[in-house]
Amino acid sequence: MDAEQIKRDGLAEIAADRERGASELARRCLALLAAYARAHEDTSRLDEDARGFARELQAARPSMAPVQNLVAEWMTSLEQMPGACDDARDYLAEQADALIERSRRAVTEAATRAVERIAPHSTVITHSSSSTVREMFRLAAPRGVRAVVTESRPLREGLALARHLSALGVPATYITDAQIATFIDAAGVALIGADAVLWDGSAVNKAGSRLLALAARDAGVPFYVCCESFKLSRALPHEVALEEMAPGELDAPALAHVTPRNVYFDITPARLISAWITERGFTTDFRSPDWL
Amino acid sequence: MDAEQIKRDGLAEIAADRERGASELARRCLALLAAYARAHEDTSRLDEDARGFARELQAARPSMAPVQNLVAEWMTSLEQMPGACDDARDYLAEQADALIERSRRAVTEAATRAVERIAPHSTVITHSSSSTVREMFRLAAPRGVRAVVTESRPLREGLALARHLSALGVPATYITDAQIATFIDAAGVALIGADAVLWDGSAVNKAGSRLLALAARDAGVPFYVCCESFKLSRALPHEVALEEMAPGELDAPALAHVTPRNVYFDITPARLISAWITERGFTTDFRSPDWL
Repeated sequence: MDAEQIKRDGLAEIAADRERGASELARRCLALLAAYARAHEDTSRLDEDARGFARELQAARPSMAPVQNLVAEWMTSLEQMPGACDDARDYLAEQADALIERSRRAVTEAATRAVERIAPHSTVITHSSSSTVREMFRLAAPRGVRAVVTESRPLREGLALARHLSALGVPATYITDAQIATFIDAAGVALIGADAVLWDGSAVNKAGSRLLALAARDAGVPFYVCCESFKLSRALPHEVALEEMAPGELDAPALAHVTPRNVYFDITPARLISAWITERGFTTDFRSPDWL
Repeated sequence: MDAEQIKRDGLAEIAADRERGASELARRCLALLAAYARAHEDTSRLDEDARGFARELQAARPSMAPVQNLVAEWMTSLEQMPGACDDARDYLAEQADALIERSRRAVTEAATRAVERIAPHSTVITHSSSSTVREMFRLAAPRGVRAVVTESRPLREGLALARHLSALGVPATYITDAQIATFIDAAGVALIGADAVLWDGSAVNKAGSRLLALAARDAGVPFYVCCESFKLSRALPHEVALEEMAPGELDAPALAHVTPRNVYFDITPARLISAWITERGFTTDFRSPDWL
């Protein structure tokens, strides 16, 4: 495939994707950048073109901090690009591959830190289907943890998580999002991943996460946000444009005067978050200089 | 149709019904009792048989206070039943019809009291599709109110409400249950009906109502419960068995280790309720002797 085709198909894929979490999507962006660099023919334009593609990838998913951060990190490698053609292509592709690996390791490390905070045989309630949370359950499965999984309308990412848990042999209760307050008391801890953790510690995640945090706070259940540190963002809540997806995903009939809305993410304020967990560790004080 | 057939079909219908709210279902029970009394042939057994049918109707929907209350109220008419055969049948049927009319008037009156508390052109967020809330919107439509309607999974009663609002010309935003916290700030007031209001003021209503109350409290939006007083129950929260419906309604694939749950109602504690509205009026103090 030529570079232009990789770019065109890749941008369409990234913009349309509803399956992958933010981390996975960011790694997919890096893989596309690697493929693009390898296929690019005119090295005199490689720097400019690659930078342009990287910026378009970022713009395709503005709510997703790791897409912003990992692609930005990759763009710094353009500064050190060697002059020779093949060397330049390989260098950019290798930089992307190395970042993919760093991100993967960070996810596993963050999940490991989370498992340390979850008592054996306890029940974890979560929302949506974060890859970090899936990794946490994989690592925690031998400790006899149980799960409460929400459907996560409209696209029901909870089904993918339920399948993952079933394959791991983790006993799971599958509920509608509307039953979160009913099942919160059954859980020892609420744990979500995040698409972004903002500068004030608030968490951008699948719509419904804030309801889980409210229910957890009301029930005295700790609410943890677990993610790789590439998800930390310098944005503040009022600066974040929450992505709105096609209202058709709600599968509502067309009715005069009725407007279906599909705001895909919500922001859980830091005051509702008991602790943050990344590969760097666990903190109840988001602003602690030791942790940041 | 003979009386036994009316009873058999009626019990099956009441147990299976997922469309009607508690009030409507209670009135349907009364209509069945009226038809049963009219069709009953052996007057020497009418008292005993009618009492038996009434008790089975109550047992079919234990979470629904108006089914308990209106059927119990009707049972008191058995005490004054006249001796003559046709008179007895007519008397019991007329008592049922009169109670249906009282319940209908109470719903409209409660909805009228609610409209008095809703500022013109304000936005009301609700959950599920209560007949009292539908009546409130009918009365409030000329005042330019707007609505935020939740889907209300699994059976999406919100679609029925959206259709009702569309027919009334009330501008409505239709959202997934998971977006409640996202849209709470757009609302001036949250208002729900109830399947029952318990002895401590807590409200039994469609699962998700408690999440709406939590989101409203967190956002500083008043949360009102509006219903006819036949919904008041002497039960306390720990005495209420919340009905669980078929897990198949969640439409989840069969997976080893994964248990879908479909607890249809939840209990919103009184501390999250700003005010109660019935045909008797509006109160912020549920235990006020003037109001009860």
